[in-house]
Amino acid sequence: MLFKNITIIDEEYNVLQDAFAAVEGDKITYVGSERPAGDFGREYDGRGKLLMSGFYNAHAHSPMTLMRGYGENLKLQDWLNTRIFPFEAHLDSNAVYWGTLLAMAESIQDGIVSTSDMYYFCEDMARAVTDAGAKANISRSLTNFTGQAPETLESYGEMQKLYKEYHNAAEGRIKIDLSLHAEYTSDPQTAKALADYAREIGDAVMHIHVSETRTEHEECIARHGKTPAAYLNDAGLFDVPALAAHCVYCTDEDLDIFKAKGVTVATNPISNMKLASGICDAAKVLDRGVGLAIGTDSVASNNSLDMFEEMKVLAIGNKVARLAPEVMTPVQVLAAATTGGAKAQKRTDCGSVKAGGRADLIVVDIAGPNMHPVHNLINNLVYSCSGKSVVMTMVDGRILYEDGEFKTIDIEKTIYEAEKATESILRKL
Amino acid sequence: MLFKNITIIDEEYNVLQDAFAAVEGDKITYVGSERPAGDFGREYDGRGKLLMSGFYNAHAHSPMTLMRGYGENLKLQDWLNTRIFPFEAHLDSNAVYWGTLLAMAESIQDGIVSTSDMYYFCEDMARAVTDAGAKANISRSLTNFTGQAPETLESYGEMQKLYKEYHNAAEGRIKIDLSLHAEYTSDPQTAKALADYAREIGDAVMHIHVSETRTEHEECIARHGKTPAAYLNDAGLFDVPALAAHCVYCTDEDLDIFKAKGVTVATNPISNMKLASGICDAAKVLDRGVGLAIGTDSVASNNSLDMFEEMKVLAIGNKVARLAPEVMTPVQVLAAATTGGAKAQKRTDCGSVKAGGRADLIVVDIAGPNMHPVHNLINNLVYSCSGKSVVMTMVDGRILYEDGEFKTIDIEKTIYEAEKATESILRKL
Repeated sequence: MLFKNITIIDEEYNVLQDAFAAVEGDKITYVGSERPAGDFGREYDGRGKLLMSGFYNAHAHSPMTLMRGYGENLKLQDWLNTRIFPFEAHLDSNAVYWGTLLAMAESIQDGIVSTSDMYYFCEDMARAVTDAGAKANISRSLTNFTGQAPETLESYGEMQKLYKEYHNAAEGRIKIDLSLHAEYTSDPQTAKALADYAREIGDAVMHIHVSETRTEHEECIARHGKTPAAYLNDAGLFDVPALAAHCVYCTDEDLDIFKAKGVTVATNPISNMKLASGICDAAKVLDRGVGLAIGTDSVASNNSLDMFEEMKVLAIGNKVARLAPEVMTPVQVLAAATTGGAKAQKRTDCGSVKAGGRADLIVVDIAGPNMHPVHNLINNLVYSCSGKSVVMTMVDGRILYEDGEFKTIDIEKTIYEAEKATESILRKL
Repeated sequence: MLFKNITIIDEEYNVLQDAFAAVEGDKITYVGSERPAGDFGREYDGRGKLLMSGFYNAHAHSPMTLMRGYGENLKLQDWLNTRIFPFEAHLDSNAVYWGTLLAMAESIQDGIVSTSDMYYFCEDMARAVTDAGAKANISRSLTNFTGQAPETLESYGEMQKLYKEYHNAAEGRIKIDLSLHAEYTSDPQTAKALADYAREIGDAVMHIHVSETRTEHEECIARHGKTPAAYLNDAGLFDVPALAAHCVYCTDEDLDIFKAKGVTVATNPISNMKLASGICDAAKVLDRGVGLAIGTDSVASNNSLDMFEEMKVLAIGNKVARLAPEVMTPVQVLAAATTGGAKAQKRTDCGSVKAGGRADLIVVDIAGPNMHPVHNLINNLVYSCSGKSVVMTMVDGRILYEDGEFKTIDIEKTIYEAEKATESILRKL
């Protein structure tokens, strides 16, 4: 396939006008200003359109899409205890499959190509992501409130089975991450056992909630005499590439640990604001040389999967929190949403438009009034655009969505089944 | 025209399913669950669609759309001195017309039906709004740095002429507001003269920037021994219905003044965050019984005109600023964006879907994955939707936009002319 006369944001965040990009198989084979020689099959007329990397959502819980708008205007503990936990208690394989597929549909429509997705019923999640043709780093998160030996937990067995059966499945689109849910939902022996397992298998990302709320952060210090980041590091969980979600209350010393260990921060600006947890100082994360990616968190606390929205809120949230309008430039924000996420998922050949890279691409309609005038296209992209302006999403060279049409998902059936599964759970409450 | 089998949010924020609404002339003549008798001309099949009030943007500077993305990552004074003021110095009648028309196109596409629009070259703004078929409350804001008698200012004459020639023009779609730009950009004699003029004409809204930044708020106290709100009230500017934009640093006493005088607060959450001014405590504004409306502010500091985005950021910004996830319910937010804005513009027959009201309506596509499941439609509308999901915008019963097509605006020409005017100004800098 050849994209022609299209605007391109390349791997250096240069904007190429009237440019060309060729896709062959699952790879981008050419990016440049001249038409490449050869026949690439379909030619896509890119006038008024932008070709860019798809988004890599670095922290999500896709099945929770079934709880969109279900628990509003509640304090965190009431939200969890009266809404989320009772609903989750009735989840099953069927509900998780359709909830994940619904999340994949919204993600694909809004330009997300890959998701770091932490939850349970993970085989059903993997099935939905595979059916959708999308990518995901799926993790079965461990919790342990029982004092039980971690290796005897049902979840521990599920985690091992998941890794063995699904890691690099679907031609590598599915990766299996490991996950300790968080310090406050587990105990030191579980952290230690998981760290041992992670070092043993060696190639899985460790995905953990870190310092999302002040309470969590301070109670960890009271319990262990150290911050969650220091505790997790001492347990050995950062001895493998890790993804620390939220990090709203991380200290400078925590960020130094992340830098030393190559931990990426996945900031979730909308969810953290909506749940009134706080604002992660993402500008400082970057200043201290730590990798930054962006997550939506779950739809239950967002309530959408639109990385354009997430980018804008990340930028303006950081500016107001620091009272410094100069922090978080549009290029920094765009890099976090694309390359930053791909790196955090260990998808090193993804996340930018470059010859030789994987064809995880989106086409955005930039012809509308909201995208003009164009003093700077990347400024407009970060602050004036919307997921609803995505007109094509391609993963590994395969078109999953184009002009309102889903190519891999039966959208009416997916919405119907997701609603049905939701209603079935609500009837049990 | 008859909307049939459509979902409707009515004036009490009830959600009616499979409902009907009739529009005759510029009015809504029926809203209900049964098909009304009679022939209403065109029948609109509303399956998968929502009919609701259009949005009333309570604070904007439309011509500044020409500066979209022009001054990013700058501290406020650098932004003003190196970008905004030099650009504005070269604005002319042509640039303002096309800039305003471009803003109207984006507004109409995203579901905004009416705008409280403060700037200069106001006759050109009125011309653009009239050509677009939209509504606006336009004000020629007064500044006075010279000590000159206010009545001798060119702007004062322009303001009087504007009121005389344009107030209630275009079948009432254009209203002329009065405006003192702000306390810090004028002097007491100008405030006094404007208050006298406002009382004399009696029926114009007073639109003023109030306590947008901490510096502005504190310097006013240093200068006058009172807050901007108290100063403006003492000058008599709130003796007529008034619209106070921003109010980020207003005190409880300021809110008491607003309540006593019937002043509406126009909060601008995205702009205030992006310029790092702060977060207006809109929940407290409501708690103290003060009217609340929502503005986008200018595209130069937003950088879009999407009230869905504005609603979401208003809610989550207030939650995080108060560390209270329970504040600002979706219904409160939606009311501020619709009825609240209409009231602030003294458009008392607008802002809700009710028989007898003006037909300022939008149709939103709610069939997509981002709007399911539906635990609560208004939650989904405020948190999961986008201006890009608006599929029809109607003002006074006239369709201005439908399914990507502008009915009153030549969109290609408007973008071309706005770009050309912008480039012409940039060449002079």
